[in-house]
Amino acid sequence: MKLKAPIIIVNFKTYLESTGQKAVALAKSAEKVSKETGESIVVAPQFADIARVAETVEIPVFAQHIDPIKPGSSTGHVLVESIKEAGAVGTLINHSEKQLKLADIDAIITLAREKGLISCVCGNNPYVSAAAAALQPDIVSIEPPELIGTGIAVSKAQPQVVTNTVNVVRQINPNMIILCGAGISQGEDVSTALKLGTNGVLVASGIVKAKDPYSILRAFADKLKQ
Amino acid sequence: MKLKAPIIIVNFKTYLESTGQKAVALAKSAEKVSKETGESIVVAPQFADIARVAETVEIPVFAQHIDPIKPGSSTGHVLVESIKEAGAVGTLINHSEKQLKLADIDAIITLAREKGLISCVCGNNPYVSAAAAALQPDIVSIEPPELIGTGIAVSKAQPQVVTNTVNVVRQINPNMIILCGAGISQGEDVSTALKLGTNGVLVASGIVKAKDPYSILRAFADKLKQ
Amino acid sequence: MKLKAPIIIVNFKTYLESTGQKAVALAKSAEKVSKETGESIVVAPQFADIARVAETVEIPVFAQHIDPIKPGSSTGHVLVESIKEAGAVGTLINHSEKQLKLADIDAIITLAREKGLISCVCGNNPYVSAAAAALQPDIVSIEPPELIGTGIAVSKAQPQVVTNTVNVVRQINPNMIILCGAGISQGEDVSTALKLGTNGVLVASGIVKAKDPYSILRAFADKLKQ
Amino acid sequence: MKLKAPIIIVNFKTYLESTGQKAVALAKSAEKVSKETGESIVVAPQFADIARVAETVEIPVFAQHIDPIKPGSSTGHVLVESIKEAGAVGTLINHSEKQLKLADIDAIITLAREKGLISCVCGNNPYVSAAAAALQPDIVSIEPPELIGTGIAVSKAQPQVVTNTVNVVRQINPNMIILCGAGISQGEDVSTALKLGTNGVLVASGIVKAKDPYSILRAFADKLKQ
Repeated sequence: MKLKAPIIIVNFKTYLESTGQKAVALAKSAEKVSKETGESIVVAPQFADIARVAETVEIPVFAQHIDPIKPGSSTGHVLVESIKEAGAVGTLINHSEKQLKLADIDAIITLAREKGLISCVCGNNPYVSAAAAALQPDIVSIEPPELIGTGIAVSKAQPQVVTNTVNVVRQINPNMIILCGAGISQGEDVSTALKLGTNGVLVASGIVKAKDPYSILRAFADKLKQ
Repeated sequence: MKLKAPIIIVNFKTYLESTGQKAVALAKSAEKVSKETGESIVVAPQFADIARVAETVEIPVFAQHIDPIKPGSSTGHVLVESIKEAGAVGTLINHSEKQLKLADIDAIITLAREKGLISCVCGNNPYVSAAAAALQPDIVSIEPPELIGTGIAVSKAQPQVVTNTVNVVRQINPNMIILCGAGISQGEDVSTALKLGTNGVLVASGIVKAKDPYSILRAFADKLKQ
Repeated sequence: MKLKAPIIIVNFKTYLESTGQKAVALAKSAEKVSKETGESIVVAPQFADIARVAETVEIPVFAQHIDPIKPGSSTGHVLVESIKEAGAVGTLINHSEKQLKLADIDAIITLAREKGLISCVCGNNPYVSAAAAALQPDIVSIEPPELIGTGIAVSKAQPQVVTNTVNVVRQINPNMIILCGAGISQGEDVSTALKLGTNGVLVASGIVKAKDPYSILRAFADKLKQ
Repeated sequence: MKLKAPIIIVNFKTYLESTGQKAVALAKSAEKVSKETGESIVVAPQFADIARVAETVEIPVFAQHIDPIKPGSSTGHVLVESIKEAGAVGTLINHSEKQLKLADIDAIITLAREKGLISCVCGNNPYVSAAAAALQPDIVSIEPPELIGTGIAVSKAQPQVVTNTVNVVRQINPNMIILCGAGISQGEDVSTALKLGTNGVLVASGIVKAKDPYSILRAFADKLKQ
């Protein structure tokens, strides 16, 4: 499977507003925006919600994490075969809230590739993103942790960080899909992200905690076209 | 919710034989045995399978792990509200394959209690099980890691370990439900476990990897009556 | 080796004021107070400072942590034989800034016992401290993390927490040495700690960051006598 | 401080043969070889031995690990200022026995650079080594974990792995010092490593567990010249 860039990934995190039935409802809103605009929108619900979300919507569903394990004795871990059968087509890796050992990131990317899943590795600064890119995932996302959940968009507050990331990542892999995240809350944050050279955004609270997630996401998607 | 002892908990781990549709099928076999015998049988599938299993069977469904978090920004973590809405009524905690920090075990037990979930803490030896019991979970399970997956039953190979656990745990909490696990593969292993003073067994490969899980589990359940 | 209660343990943490030559100087102040008052005062410097501190002072020196390993291939880990040869006679375990898995705490206590080192396990609340006590270390210390480094003494701000800890720990082991810590900064905090049933205090910034560590520690030690 | 390549780093790990007084003796042997041959030999003893080793020998001393922390409240952690004052001039990072999160590796390299310490990051395969190189440490070392401690030299058993590492790392940073390790036990393993394009070796048991560490290390150093 290949995603058509530009891309918006909506990370559901562990908000109550995106848990269980509310995860399904939010995914439907995202699907509506995707169908109306023709843009690539991915949803990343919690593990226990992947199956219900994936059987309800046709847009791509990602896991928020998988573990670097083979089938067998790994109680409490997340097996790639399990989330794939539940309907996920990709996974976030190394989100700043679920940081991983370097060798495990590499192992998970390899595992995802073997199983045909799309891999999106998160980094907290340009160098870490470059390191992630050296591991050859499908997508790299830069998210300065200090801006996550603030509503202060990385693309506006730290454009240099985004530009540096784009530069160092493209040196290592010219074709890498690059997203940025943290604080993305308005349509213009998305426009700015694209102008800085990225291929889209990774967003969470800006959509999940919005009064009207559909409208905000629609505004984001409309900016992808311009 | 309260479980009636004695109890058999079937830990699905991350075996392919207990993933996705096969998790649902295995849970149905467990439900059949439970209905036929009237005994308490719990199934603990992977996170992504909880919802499908719980909407299919009426026996109790446990998660294999939950994280000590509140709703919010915890990408890739397991939120108690999420697995509860998916249909879980309890959770394993600190399995030897998912060992946790002491303070996190305490926080998870408290969280489970607040949300009305049954907590089953695993320990690798009598002292660790006693420590777990001091945290006041609903169930304590002793599993010597060196016997897990061997088919050599703890109740047969290390009866002293089981007896010691029962003694030190009951000193701390006389009413604790105590299970033992590791290598349980035949009906007589279950009988022996009960004779040593436990209230049942925690089993995984002995059932999941069996050619005919129904028959083995039925044999286990029959021994609970005696 | 046995420590005579009551006890004051001074945790040097990783403050610059207690690193290298300053660790040696601070340990000398602690030794002076101990000799003047006859009270048990323990110092716990960083790993790299243990040898220089232990060859300079005659009071007991603890490590701040050891790993649950045997001699061999454990690059970057802390071997009990190493800190023992450097002169340590005991170790802190599971400090809230170095939290450990339950099974590792058990393994470290066993290792310390085998090698003749004094073990002091820290807990963040009464239940966790009781769990620690079930593992039979030599000393249990209760430190509510939210008060660490605040100068607001646990013995004054949360006397109930200290009393509860003393009660639940003594039920499990009537002879356990129990310390309390967090925010201890004045002599009367020490008096109060003893009145609540503890056998002394675990202190860090209250001494290490004091303008005149000798005077504060002397005030603490004087209160042990009363 | 700069190291002159080629380089041999002797990782003392946590072997009893390289603990305490034996660490000092082994470091003296390494110093003797370095003085006789004029080659760069680095020793990496345990934390508690750094001070005694560094005040005894004049060759460079590395720590086996440091933590990504600032001075303050980090009980049980390894502060860069502490090991620097003890005499270390560099540190291993992310050894396969002490694997770290990607963002922590980045933070530690930055910390080492700020404090003037040499950073040597270990990787378990070519891609991970390339990722490490993207973080701009001073040295990258490739060590396939399955060969560590076997006496089967990576340079002989997996020359392709070494060559691939050299290629992908040099693409990212043409001037990076590249070492290889795992199973290095004879002089010719060192020759082969250099022929494959590396700048030296990272060795542990091959020296530490040798009957005559001086002779083996001398044989290694002699091969650096050729």
